[in-house]
Amino acid sequence: MAAALAAASDGHRGANPLVGATILAPDGRTVTGRHLGAGTPHAEVDAIAAARRNGFDLTASTLLVTLEPCAHTGRTGPCTQAILDAGIPDVVFALPDTTALAGGGGQILAEAGVRVRSGLGAAESAQLNARWRTAVGSGRPFVTAKIAQSLDGKVAAADRTSRWITSAASREHSHRLRGTVDAILVGTGTVAADDPRLSARDADGELLDSQPIPVVMGMSELPADSHLAADPATVHLRTRDVDTALRDLHDRGVRHLLVEGGPQLLGEFFTADAVDEVLCYQAPVLLGDGLPSVAGLGVSTLAEAVSLVPDDTAIPAVSVLGPDVLLHFATGGSQ
Amino acid sequence: MAAALAAASDGHRGANPLVGATILAPDGRTVTGRHLGAGTPHAEVDAIAAARRNGFDLTASTLLVTLEPCAHTGRTGPCTQAILDAGIPDVVFALPDTTALAGGGGQILAEAGVRVRSGLGAAESAQLNARWRTAVGSGRPFVTAKIAQSLDGKVAAADRTSRWITSAASREHSHRLRGTVDAILVGTGTVAADDPRLSARDADGELLDSQPIPVVMGMSELPADSHLAADPATVHLRTRDVDTALRDLHDRGVRHLLVEGGPQLLGEFFTADAVDEVLCYQAPVLLGDGLPSVAGLGVSTLAEAVSLVPDDTAIPAVSVLGPDVLLHFATGGSQ
Ligand SMILES: NC(=O)c1ccc[n+]([C@@H]2O[C@H](COP(=O)([O-])OP(=O)(O)OC[C@H]3O[C@@H](n4cnc5c(N)ncnc54)[C@H](OP(=O)(O)O)[C@@H]3O)[C@@H](O)[C@H]2O)c1
Ligand SMILES: NC(=O)c1ccc[n+]([C@@H]2O[C@H](COP(=O)([O-])OP(=O)(O)OC[C@H]3O[C@@H](n4cnc5c(N)ncnc54)[C@H](OP(=O)(O)O)[C@@H]3O)[C@@H](O)[C@H]2O)c1
Repeated sequence: MAAALAAASDGHRGANPLVGATILAPDGRTVTGRHLGAGTPHAEVDAIAAARRNGFDLTASTLLVTLEPCAHTGRTGPCTQAILDAGIPDVVFALPDTTALAGGGGQILAEAGVRVRSGLGAAESAQLNARWRTAVGSGRPFVTAKIAQSLDGKVAAADRTSRWITSAASREHSHRLRGTVDAILVGTGTVAADDPRLSARDADGELLDSQPIPVVMGMSELPADSHLAADPATVHLRTRDVDTALRDLHDRGVRHLLVEGGPQLLGEFFTADAVDEVLCYQAPVLLGDGLPSVAGLGVSTLAEAVSLVPDDTAIPAVSVLGPDVLLHFATGGSQ
Repeated sequence: MAAALAAASDGHRGANPLVGATILAPDGRTVTGRHLGAGTPHAEVDAIAAARRNGFDLTASTLLVTLEPCAHTGRTGPCTQAILDAGIPDVVFALPDTTALAGGGGQILAEAGVRVRSGLGAAESAQLNARWRTAVGSGRPFVTAKIAQSLDGKVAAADRTSRWITSAASREHSHRLRGTVDAILVGTGTVAADDPRLSARDADGELLDSQPIPVVMGMSELPADSHLAADPATVHLRTRDVDTALRDLHDRGVRHLLVEGGPQLLGEFFTADAVDEVLCYQAPVLLGDGLPSVAGLGVSTLAEAVSLVPDDTAIPAVSVLGPDVLLHFATGGSQ
């Protein structure tokens, strides 16, 4: 189970939880599998494929997985069926899947004659997906906040110029991130200042296969000549209320939301405790009197600071991107 | 020479340049040495000791060193004498030492019958110490700027509380840094706000062996009841001019100066291009409307940003200190 948990923490978070699986062959060999994001095989299926490649006798193997195998056919077919097809006689899962859609897999397996146990590593698995479970539990998307700032925490110079503070390597990384989320949100202020497209592009400017829904939040009209006003996919949420916006997006099927700013919107999301994960791209420049990356947190004294937790799950807590660093955090004291 | 350069870049910068040495034995084995800061053996002496430990025949070995061996007796005795005593017949150095005090070592060695060559790796050695040479050449201390900030670039909350933004691990690291410099400078604003001692202490609050001179810059009087007003070692520079202050400190023998802030003073030092190295301790907290870490750079648009260069010499460009990151930069486009 430790190997399954480690595999899970190397996986891909977002619309789905982090899940890892280990298969233990009768001769003591093991393989691991992980879930790498929406539309890709679940951890169990990944591990079964690896076991087959390594010639494991699956009919005498044990599957250990950090989440109850799913019973529903999503984009990838139910894992319970894959386990039964493989003839695996013994399944141990850490945490039950309590969602109405995918839950009940353990019972299906047990009824088909598989030996099913649960609970091993449950605390660690829950911890790994704490914020994700909070988001799912309250019917809102998992929210990743992205900040691209100078060393002194500015997202634009005094004259509002902000292209580009960070390096090409950082921008390419953040475009790949865009390609993995369901929607990207900015405030009306950012649309007015930067006229962004909010599309996911590669280094050559070509659109990536998967495109997020562009979303703008705020009462102002979008400038008529802006890219987002012209894009039929754009969703304009005429509200300043974070919870209302998140409920609306969840109703539209958005499960992973990337909030790209600007400072006012980010500040409101932090204040509403609606940020689950932070990615901060930081460039080695000083801007002095520029625009602060996060505005209006309502923090008046040090003891009230919003504290983040360096997070090594899914991606490293600290990585180097060309001249920049990318810092990865969870929110809320534990993740 | 590549090994000597690598050893140099792992050394300790400050009052002294980064210097590394390699000794090549007749059987092809090598050892390296480096200079680890004021008062410790020079790179050549360190390498000779390592060669002896490894049983090298020094009378048939070649010494390669990134800077001309020194001819003066400082705190550590001249390297030329150590080389002659060891009987090393062949010396290659990268860069001549042009200081009046220590220069001329190559000539002394040659006159004593040693084969002396120079120039190999000169560009790399110069690059390694570019900012250091600029400082020495203009008769001012080498200046390290220290920033201890939140993720969003604040050094104090809105109510000016700033103790402690960074973790115990960061503070211990920065106290060790204090123990390696000749003087620490803050502005009168920081004295009024924080009443600092500017001493180098260990984790238990005990004073370290080596204590920097506490220096305050600005026209205001120090509060009569402040620690620094009571400390007979305190130097109060009644000026707002960076060059005047640096000349004064150089005259007092200060070769490595640590500027700890606050924001106004740091801004003036960056604007005057008087910062050679930046150490930024960054904590995983957001402060929103706090005090920016660097004020008044006079940067009005992105193209005017002060650019720094991630620097892996002496210490890594990025390191993790408990929950914090420590970022290390050189200034001025190249180091
Ligand atoms: N480097 C980066 O990563 C980055 C990213 C984004 C933006 N930026 C910079 O940020 C600047 C724009 O800053 P900004 O703070 O004005 O942009 P913003 O946060 O995108 O927009 C602020 C506007 O959003 C609306 N809004 C919606 N919900 C809100 C809420 N809950 N609370 C407050 N406002 C809400 C308000 O306008 P309504 O009146 O319409 O409701 C508000 O004026 C630009 O200079 C841009 O370049 C930089
Ligand atoms: N987290 C950290 O690492 C850290 C470190 C230091 C300070 N701080 C915080 O910084 C705050 C103090 O900020 P501050 O900016 O007022 O402090 P500061 O930069 O230490 O002091 C500013 C004062 O220094 C004098 N000064 C001397 N040379 C100057 C020059 N060339 N240009 C401008 N001023 C010069 C001026 O006063 P005169 O009228 O006397 O000339 C000026 O008012 C405090 O809240 C403190 O907690 C945080």
